[in-house]
Amino acid sequence: MSYEVRSLNEECGVFGIWGHPDASRVTYFGLHSLQHRGQEGAGIVSNSEGKLLGHRDLGLLSEVFKDDRQLEQLTGHAAIGHVRYATAGNGSVDNIQPFLFKFYDGQIALAHNGNLTNAKSLRNELEKDGAIFHSNSDTEILMHLIRRSHQPSFLERLKEALNAVKGGFAYLMLTEDSMVAALDPNGFRPLSIGQMVNGAYVVASETCALEVVGAEFIRDVNPGEIIVIDEDGLTVEHFTEDTQHAICSMEYVYFARPDSNIAGVNVHSARKRMGKILAIESPVEADMVVGVPNSSLSAASGYAEESGIPYEIGLVKNQYVARTFIQPTQELREQGVRMKLSAVRGVVAGKRVIMVDDSIVRGTTSRRIVNLLKEAGAKEVHVRIASPPLRYPCFYGIDIQTRKELIAANHSVEEICECIEADSLAFLSEEGLIEGVGLQFDAPYSGLCMAYFNGDYPTPLYDYEEQYQASLKEKISFF
Amino acid sequence: MSYEVRSLNEECGVFGIWGHPDASRVTYFGLHSLQHRGQEGAGIVSNSEGKLLGHRDLGLLSEVFKDDRQLEQLTGHAAIGHVRYATAGNGSVDNIQPFLFKFYDGQIALAHNGNLTNAKSLRNELEKDGAIFHSNSDTEILMHLIRRSHQPSFLERLKEALNAVKGGFAYLMLTEDSMVAALDPNGFRPLSIGQMVNGAYVVASETCALEVVGAEFIRDVNPGEIIVIDEDGLTVEHFTEDTQHAICSMEYVYFARPDSNIAGVNVHSARKRMGKILAIESPVEADMVVGVPNSSLSAASGYAEESGIPYEIGLVKNQYVARTFIQPTQELREQGVRMKLSAVRGVVAGKRVIMVDDSIVRGTTSRRIVNLLKEAGAKEVHVRIASPPLRYPCFYGIDIQTRKELIAANHSVEEICECIEADSLAFLSEEGLIEGVGLQFDAPYSGLCMAYFNGDYPTPLYDYEEQYQASLKEKISFF
Amino acid sequence: MSYEVRSLNEECGVFGIWGHPDASRVTYFGLHSLQHRGQEGAGIVSNSEGKLLGHRDLGLLSEVFKDDRQLEQLTGHAAIGHVRYATAGNGSVDNIQPFLFKFYDGQIALAHNGNLTNAKSLRNELEKDGAIFHSNSDTEILMHLIRRSHQPSFLERLKEALNAVKGGFAYLMLTEDSMVAALDPNGFRPLSIGQMVNGAYVVASETCALEVVGAEFIRDVNPGEIIVIDEDGLTVEHFTEDTQHAICSMEYVYFARPDSNIAGVNVHSARKRMGKILAIESPVEADMVVGVPNSSLSAASGYAEESGIPYEIGLVKNQYVARTFIQPTQELREQGVRMKLSAVRGVVAGKRVIMVDDSIVRGTTSRRIVNLLKEAGAKEVHVRIASPPLRYPCFYGIDIQTRKELIAANHSVEEICECIEADSLAFLSEEGLIEGVGLQFDAPYSGLCMAYFNGDYPTPLYDYEEQYQASLKEKISFF
Amino acid sequence: MSYEVRSLNEECGVFGIWGHPDASRVTYFGLHSLQHRGQEGAGIVSNSEGKLLGHRDLGLLSEVFKDDRQLEQLTGHAAIGHVRYATAGNGSVDNIQPFLFKFYDGQIALAHNGNLTNAKSLRNELEKDGAIFHSNSDTEILMHLIRRSHQPSFLERLKEALNAVKGGFAYLMLTEDSMVAALDPNGFRPLSIGQMVNGAYVVASETCALEVVGAEFIRDVNPGEIIVIDEDGLTVEHFTEDTQHAICSMEYVYFARPDSNIAGVNVHSARKRMGKILAIESPVEADMVVGVPNSSLSAASGYAEESGIPYEIGLVKNQYVARTFIQPTQELREQGVRMKLSAVRGVVAGKRVIMVDDSIVRGTTSRRIVNLLKEAGAKEVHVRIASPPLRYPCFYGIDIQTRKELIAANHSVEEICECIEADSLAFLSEEGLIEGVGLQFDAPYSGLCMAYFNGDYPTPLYDYEEQYQASLKEKISFF
Repeated sequence: MSYEVRSLNEECGVFGIWGHPDASRVTYFGLHSLQHRGQEGAGIVSNSEGKLLGHRDLGLLSEVFKDDRQLEQLTGHAAIGHVRYATAGNGSVDNIQPFLFKFYDGQIALAHNGNLTNAKSLRNELEKDGAIFHSNSDTEILMHLIRRSHQPSFLERLKEALNAVKGGFAYLMLTEDSMVAALDPNGFRPLSIGQMVNGAYVVASETCALEVVGAEFIRDVNPGEIIVIDEDGLTVEHFTEDTQHAICSMEYVYFARPDSNIAGVNVHSARKRMGKILAIESPVEADMVVGVPNSSLSAASGYAEESGIPYEIGLVKNQYVARTFIQPTQELREQGVRMKLSAVRGVVAGKRVIMVDDSIVRGTTSRRIVNLLKEAGAKEVHVRIASPPLRYPCFYGIDIQTRKELIAANHSVEEICECIEADSLAFLSEEGLIEGVGLQFDAPYSGLCMAYFNGDYPTPLYDYEEQYQASLKEKISFF
Repeated sequence: MSYEVRSLNEECGVFGIWGHPDASRVTYFGLHSLQHRGQEGAGIVSNSEGKLLGHRDLGLLSEVFKDDRQLEQLTGHAAIGHVRYATAGNGSVDNIQPFLFKFYDGQIALAHNGNLTNAKSLRNELEKDGAIFHSNSDTEILMHLIRRSHQPSFLERLKEALNAVKGGFAYLMLTEDSMVAALDPNGFRPLSIGQMVNGAYVVASETCALEVVGAEFIRDVNPGEIIVIDEDGLTVEHFTEDTQHAICSMEYVYFARPDSNIAGVNVHSARKRMGKILAIESPVEADMVVGVPNSSLSAASGYAEESGIPYEIGLVKNQYVARTFIQPTQELREQGVRMKLSAVRGVVAGKRVIMVDDSIVRGTTSRRIVNLLKEAGAKEVHVRIASPPLRYPCFYGIDIQTRKELIAANHSVEEICECIEADSLAFLSEEGLIEGVGLQFDAPYSGLCMAYFNGDYPTPLYDYEEQYQASLKEKISFF
Repeated sequence: MSYEVRSLNEECGVFGIWGHPDASRVTYFGLHSLQHRGQEGAGIVSNSEGKLLGHRDLGLLSEVFKDDRQLEQLTGHAAIGHVRYATAGNGSVDNIQPFLFKFYDGQIALAHNGNLTNAKSLRNELEKDGAIFHSNSDTEILMHLIRRSHQPSFLERLKEALNAVKGGFAYLMLTEDSMVAALDPNGFRPLSIGQMVNGAYVVASETCALEVVGAEFIRDVNPGEIIVIDEDGLTVEHFTEDTQHAICSMEYVYFARPDSNIAGVNVHSARKRMGKILAIESPVEADMVVGVPNSSLSAASGYAEESGIPYEIGLVKNQYVARTFIQPTQELREQGVRMKLSAVRGVVAGKRVIMVDDSIVRGTTSRRIVNLLKEAGAKEVHVRIASPPLRYPCFYGIDIQTRKELIAANHSVEEICECIEADSLAFLSEEGLIEGVGLQFDAPYSGLCMAYFNGDYPTPLYDYEEQYQASLKEKISFF
Repeated sequence: MSYEVRSLNEECGVFGIWGHPDASRVTYFGLHSLQHRGQEGAGIVSNSEGKLLGHRDLGLLSEVFKDDRQLEQLTGHAAIGHVRYATAGNGSVDNIQPFLFKFYDGQIALAHNGNLTNAKSLRNELEKDGAIFHSNSDTEILMHLIRRSHQPSFLERLKEALNAVKGGFAYLMLTEDSMVAALDPNGFRPLSIGQMVNGAYVVASETCALEVVGAEFIRDVNPGEIIVIDEDGLTVEHFTEDTQHAICSMEYVYFARPDSNIAGVNVHSARKRMGKILAIESPVEADMVVGVPNSSLSAASGYAEESGIPYEIGLVKNQYVARTFIQPTQELREQGVRMKLSAVRGVVAGKRVIMVDDSIVRGTTSRRIVNLLKEAGAKEVHVRIASPPLRYPCFYGIDIQTRKELIAANHSVEEICECIEADSLAFLSEEGLIEGVGLQFDAPYSGLCMAYFNGDYPTPLYDYEEQYQASLKEKISFF
């Protein structure tokens, strides 16, 4: 029942369109389908005949653009937008993107999904040289690098800057006369291109946004590419040839919407395959398979189909929960007053339940859901996780940057099973995950980044190296 | 994809608690789990040592109670609350319940789920006799009847009043020294009683609210009963013995949460059984079964399980859609810009899809979803509806009061199939619905109200009789 | 400097118009000029071809009608509006007027300025007979009396009801086919009629509202009159002939805007005359005359002109203070942190100041302003009050209903002078007030109600008699 | 009656405090008394043990700090705040001050009142060198200059930067360990220092803010000074010795609050003296003197006192007008529906009125007020302006930067008199203004800036020179 905000937070979603008379409105709908990638804030910048106009604020997209008035001011044939991930603390509107920069010689808007691994070093160097930053975000760094470059053209300056930043990044930019996208050399974050019937080009973090705005999928942006869209159409440039696919595996496991395709692989189908492989790897006798809504329903249906055990709705998520600021007091919590997730007593009472979830971070959520099922009368609860144990932090755009938060970093599967009070526990194998996703790139792990599971980071860690080495020595007990 | 607000709206949810130090807060959480029964407005009245205190407003519960400040003012050991259904027009806060009445000789709060069939006659009579009404709601009528009764005790006055009102009603009242619930002689609307660990009594429209607040289910309120809860505990009274169960079948089909039990029957399980019977009654060769989220997922999983055809997530609902006031323009809509519901191209493309939905009202929504699946590449779309055709209006608490809105009132299944552009269409039979729900009451249709499907109303229609007869003569074509 | 909300609160302002295509908008501007008569809430009801439409809420008029959207919905050629006075406690929107009643046989909106002296008795009787009230306001009583009357016409029913209510009342009503105003037999509250260039009739609590909407003053509503305005023009009716003018003297002293005329007397000019008489009655040697802004500036200029002592701006009111919810903490207050009112050190330092104020209620505000002048360096502060000592409560529409709040009820002028720490203190005489206002009615005190000053109430006190007698025995010391 | 927003807008107010446990709250009250200097936005930054915390937003101070929650987060013993002037267009929160900068090696907050004359050149140079600006405000320039300076200490870097910026500026800064104020070499804008009883130092744009927070006036900040306040107390530094007083005369005429002293001269007293001199320079036979509220009341009382003609309240300003967004339609305006300012018919009808105002910008407001008095029955309206004709733009902090807006730049007094439809018109002479203010500095015009009146600018105009020369050639007719 009571079920906390997930510890895993995505680092944003971007959407842009070039060549549509109602560009900011289309951007609104595109961003709306990417809202799951960030709820802290949102913004849109449009290009109105060379003049960039923007609106951004803290809150859900529907709160930032409460009615048509704000959108109507963002006229023009091109626009980019951004949704920013939710943090616990109080955010500042200064960090909400797209950032809009106005210079004596031009204007540019910038949106970013990802995380730089050398942000701190670059920022310190720039500040020592007189630069002034206006946000805590590492996104601003790229703009300083571009403005300080002495290359002759914007594209050359951009390439120089992109070679200076390290880590995971999907940038989307709007200038007075073009829309520009760029993806890091590993392609950690998804970024796709589509086209609408009227010829307008669309760039989005997930293909679900292309569907929602009625755009046809054209191609993914590849690692190391710069995509320039302007009145002459679409041009592909490269800022580096030293690339190798390492797509974030958590996009498939948890983050992305089931109706998106990443690198040609449908997310729901990948999850269902992972559920099937999990059923083969870790079978158990039971009366029903129950998925934790909403992200684990695909994997649960795969497990059920493969095992032949009935798929049931044994857990119900309250669809109105997202924006409630009133929480049960500790006392009420102890009396069993819960929100968000309910176990279906009429379904699970007296039954042996296989509970399928996508991942375990701290374990506290899993323990609560197991107990919730047991309080509703489940006789046994067997937990099956449709991904391998999370053991290592991510530095490319997911906000787990310490191993302290990861129960699997410090405990065996048996210990975790005991901790979450399940009758049995099993995780999908690394091979099962790779097979379930089914990428075919000529790269380690077929093109997936598996670092959270095995510590095999595809790039140097730069500013995070020290912190990472320290975390390896931490021994935290969850008991 | 774009998928309109459903034409079927529930007439509210009620929740009350007696005997808890944090009564208004518990009521908040109880109402929160009943938010699906009404989104227009919400309110809570608490009993603070005999003084009734209330707060109500238009909007979702989380908007009406934005932070702890409003709740903290509603002190006391007892409280009742209400969520009101959404209408198209602009509502007035005057209609938001609970209504709180203050008299020189006492106070009373009143909340209501249902619809009276003789409201207009009663109101006119009362107004002719000098009564002043302050809302459009028929709920106020009961209070006028009570206050004008010359019976010697409150309970006697209440019984007299309850015998004067006709139709469907589940009332919940809070007085200075008691909480009182009452249910109409047919029990059209669900109303259940639970008890918390500390002994506090809880009354709620659905059992999911009992679960959420950690209360154990005690019993349902039966037709014709008055339940009085006060410092002496719970007493059962009757205002009539002339009762016969006719539980609204649409509660099982569409309204209620899957984790609720109504008359001892779990809603998810009932829906899954309906899906199974539907699979037996109307099989079709196909590659996958897809449910329309969220209400049809149970029936779809039943259909899949029975037929052995894989259950897939072929439609995705945007969980952030509820409160967006910005809509695509007609032009964007034609260009394919959609919100709310997306088809999963990666799943359905090239496949024969069985689309399971719970009901068809006008048919426009069904046509949109069929087209959405086809635009995403589905080769065939076979629609299976897990309830019989809706042909007659409801006068007991669902806001379909004319046959004009009902495509099945005027068209054959073949015509509807053509209208919604499906490759085939089938509805569950009436027998299938009754068997799927599985009630065992000694009453017509085993205790279900089947009037929407067959026009067999369990009571006289009073003020609606004329309107109903007229509607039978209407011939509206949807083509 | 910090200077509390005045203890004297007016009981509202009303405005209505009949015969203007933009009636609700004109009503907005009329009410806007009456905002000083009430800040708790506001509302407008319009008549759109016989259908009454209303909007009301807590807050200033500009908060209730935030933008054009609410006004645009209030279409029609006639409208009435109301501003309600501010109270300390949390108000409920249920008490905000105009009240809008909808019956099977018609609609009526009702707004009220004043206070009934037999409200409690009437309400109890009505409730015993089955009536249900929906507000705490005594305004609703009239509507119950009208609806329960058995007279043959609306006008006859209204007359019967107006003869049943006692005290001070200025009613404004809007029905489907007329606008109706009525004034109590003593005319305690002002109510005037004007006409716009297009022929539209306007009724308003003060003539300043006529000026603001460009209407020409026609006549005052007289005690005991009913004014009916409909498509046949304006008709004067009487519900009683037993009338005698007793206009609230505090309207001249404090409440009304200086640009209003009451009974033909300009309020600024009356105040200036009071200041002149005060200068003659109570001269003192000093360097300057300083008025307490804003209500006492007229009297101060009169005092200065008569005495020949220079008029200076020695106190400045912060014009932005009205809506600030942040107040200095007790600690900061003690450190001298103040808002609202500042003494002008550069003006008063080293000088002998005559501080002119309109009245003294508790004395705490006066003491603060005296101290504020002294802290700014004033050598002497001589307080001159441009009205007689307030010694008795008001039951006709000002919210002083106990003598406990009145320092002059229990203390001599010398004691008050000591209490407010002034160097000297004098009040205007009763004769001076009557002469300064200068009414010419053939009635006691030339037509003024002087009850606050001398306890000579123009009517029986009904439900308040007991409370009043008790208050006479109270001896409260302010020391 | 209808009376537009003044064309003259002040460029902000600043307030800071060092050494008070409740620094941000005291800053709130200080800024509150400076609200007349800017209504577009407000902000406060506090120093919480070396960590700077800020909150700023568009709107009045009371809107930006709606309740105690925002203030409570701004803990610390020091704080600075800013109110920003209102513009017609939609502002961006990016321009609201104080600006808060966070660097790897420190933090600094910056607030500014004034206008730089070489902002455009400096900004272009900085941008060419890679600087990124985040606001349209010229305030940010100082920070870039400081950060790019190679001087060894903060104070040296600040001095270098202050010598690079030209024009009118009063800066207030908060660093981790000090509060710093700086004033331009001409002292165009007022800036004063006070001290609270507990020893805390206060810096404010006007002395009224010192009074309001209970601080004693210590000294003014002098031209060319840097005031450093830190744990060692107050230190006076100089960034230049090349200084000469040229205090903005419009501060005395119109902007400053009457209870403020500027350079030791009380503003009310200065205005009253100007009114007296005006009465001597330009007498006229009449029945009364009426001031345009609120800024002209002091001058009007001076005129009345000197001339012996009675001072009357013939114009009333609606105190609730400030925040109303609903305006009369053009049609209603023509029908005479007005807000904001009313003429008092009961006072002026049939009388010869001397209307005293502080200045004339376009003349449209004056014409409206003259007409308003005449419509209320005034027989004659003689306009007397308590300052010389405004003929030249200001580049030091008032937003008149073109002569096109100035009727007196293009028309004689006779023409203006005709244009505003007055019976006679006279302005105060330049000598009268200088004498009325009564400064004693050894500088042209005794230390006043008289440039608006005579074009004698105390400094080179830098980036504005070209624009200014062009404006001299413009010939705009107001007829």
